[in-house]
Amino acid sequence: MTGAGDSTNAAEQPRSLNFRLTLEYDGTDFRGWQLQAEGQRTVQGVVEAAIERVTGTFCRIHGAGRTDAGVHAQGQVASVRIPTRLGTDDLRRALNANLPADVAVVDAAEVDDAFHARFSALGKVYRYRVWNGAIRSPLRARATHAEPRPLDIEQMSLAAKWLVGRHDFSSFQAAGTEVDSAVRTLTRFEIDGHRGDEIAFEVAGEGFLRHMVRNLVGTLLEVGRGRREAAQMAQILAARDRTQAGPTAPACGLTLIEVKY
Amino acid sequence: MTGAGDSTNAAEQPRSLNFRLTLEYDGTDFRGWQLQAEGQRTVQGVVEAAIERVTGTFCRIHGAGRTDAGVHAQGQVASVRIPTRLGTDDLRRALNANLPADVAVVDAAEVDDAFHARFSALGKVYRYRVWNGAIRSPLRARATHAEPRPLDIEQMSLAAKWLVGRHDFSSFQAAGTEVDSAVRTLTRFEIDGHRGDEIAFEVAGEGFLRHMVRNLVGTLLEVGRGRREAAQMAQILAARDRTQAGPTAPACGLTLIEVKY
Repeated sequence: MTGAGDSTNAAEQPRSLNFRLTLEYDGTDFRGWQLQAEGQRTVQGVVEAAIERVTGTFCRIHGAGRTDAGVHAQGQVASVRIPTRLGTDDLRRALNANLPADVAVVDAAEVDDAFHARFSALGKVYRYRVWNGAIRSPLRARATHAEPRPLDIEQMSLAAKWLVGRHDFSSFQAAGTEVDSAVRTLTRFEIDGHRGDEIAFEVAGEGFLRHMVRNLVGTLLEVGRGRREAAQMAQILAARDRTQAGPTAPACGLTLIEVKY
Repeated sequence: MTGAGDSTNAAEQPRSLNFRLTLEYDGTDFRGWQLQAEGQRTVQGVVEAAIERVTGTFCRIHGAGRTDAGVHAQGQVASVRIPTRLGTDDLRRALNANLPADVAVVDAAEVDDAFHARFSALGKVYRYRVWNGAIRSPLRARATHAEPRPLDIEQMSLAAKWLVGRHDFSSFQAAGTEVDSAVRTLTRFEIDGHRGDEIAFEVAGEGFLRHMVRNLVGTLLEVGRGRREAAQMAQILAARDRTQAGPTAPACGLTLIEVKY
């Protein structure tokens, strides 16, 4: 073997550099971000495989957020130490040439050794898209959740206001999850109904529990349909009981837009 | 069998009505519109199968345009005679419940017996989307053609002006196609570069030859890259020779937006 094979020669092995990779992916055909049992296609798996093909070395990557199966990303961030002499532009190009059509490295930067995509993150922004047309839309099916029943955007916006701030979000975390604390801070929760039949929920926060965004949206959709009052959000938060909130909205509508550092 | 099976009873068979179905589909996973060899998944095939499941009767549908494999539609139109007592709303709902996620009937209307989706059509509107970002975008990969090289929108718009009007489009039809006349009329050809890194080509005309839109766009992209002059369009049209025009742009960027009657 030549090329990539040469770089495995210990005498020539370049020093490992710490990289921040910004990733965009269509989550539809992935079993989520994180490595699963053998044979499951995950974003982490295909990116690690591309790095190994490009550098000849296996490098473990660390994602800022473990997106679920079917969840998309416009700006997921991963950190990884790679022994390479490639510049960041060449590394990005080489990785993209080795990645499938549904995932791409949209930015690569060399970062300080202390940088870790997950532990250094200060916040995240998610967008949840709902197709509210009377008839489902095949051209939007992969990236939106279809809810044909009328939704009251004003009431959903009022309900979202109750959720902004520092709260115990136990009622909105995936059942059976164990975390030290379910206290999280949401800095923004906006609902944009000015895109025709599409409604976009945009939520920013310092951190999120498992399924939290999807559970928040699932509950707001019940408000939108008139099944709950906006002010009920305060009681649901206070209950710290998953059964008090609405259902988990489907994964396909959710996109991780940005990770803040 | 009960239900659908009952309607095949000749004594009870309702009169066949002529319907106009407006269809939206994501063409990525179809081998185009038209029925192919056994086992090929086509839009016509899945819609005819849905009609048969709903009505218990096989009914041949006629599409306004035979979109190629990978081409999408927001407003494809099909006509079909169906022996049914269902109203148009119930028919639409029943068909959508029996269609896969990547195709839907967005409108169903009962029409005069003389209506034929293809022969009654007065014109069509297509949109071709190009992702002109430096880095490919997985979230747009299914519905755009990625061209990372810089494109001069002003020059492409100038070139498009030469194409509007009544011309012999032999130079832009699929090689090996036999038609009586390649004379067609384009009524509009606009290029919208105001969507960030996305460029949309919108073309309207009374009729189109096979691969015509994709060949027109493929040629305009060469103008955009500075490989051809805008005024060359006149010579290419006059040549009536497919080898004089540019390559066929990939199917994935093309969407049939509307059929006019």
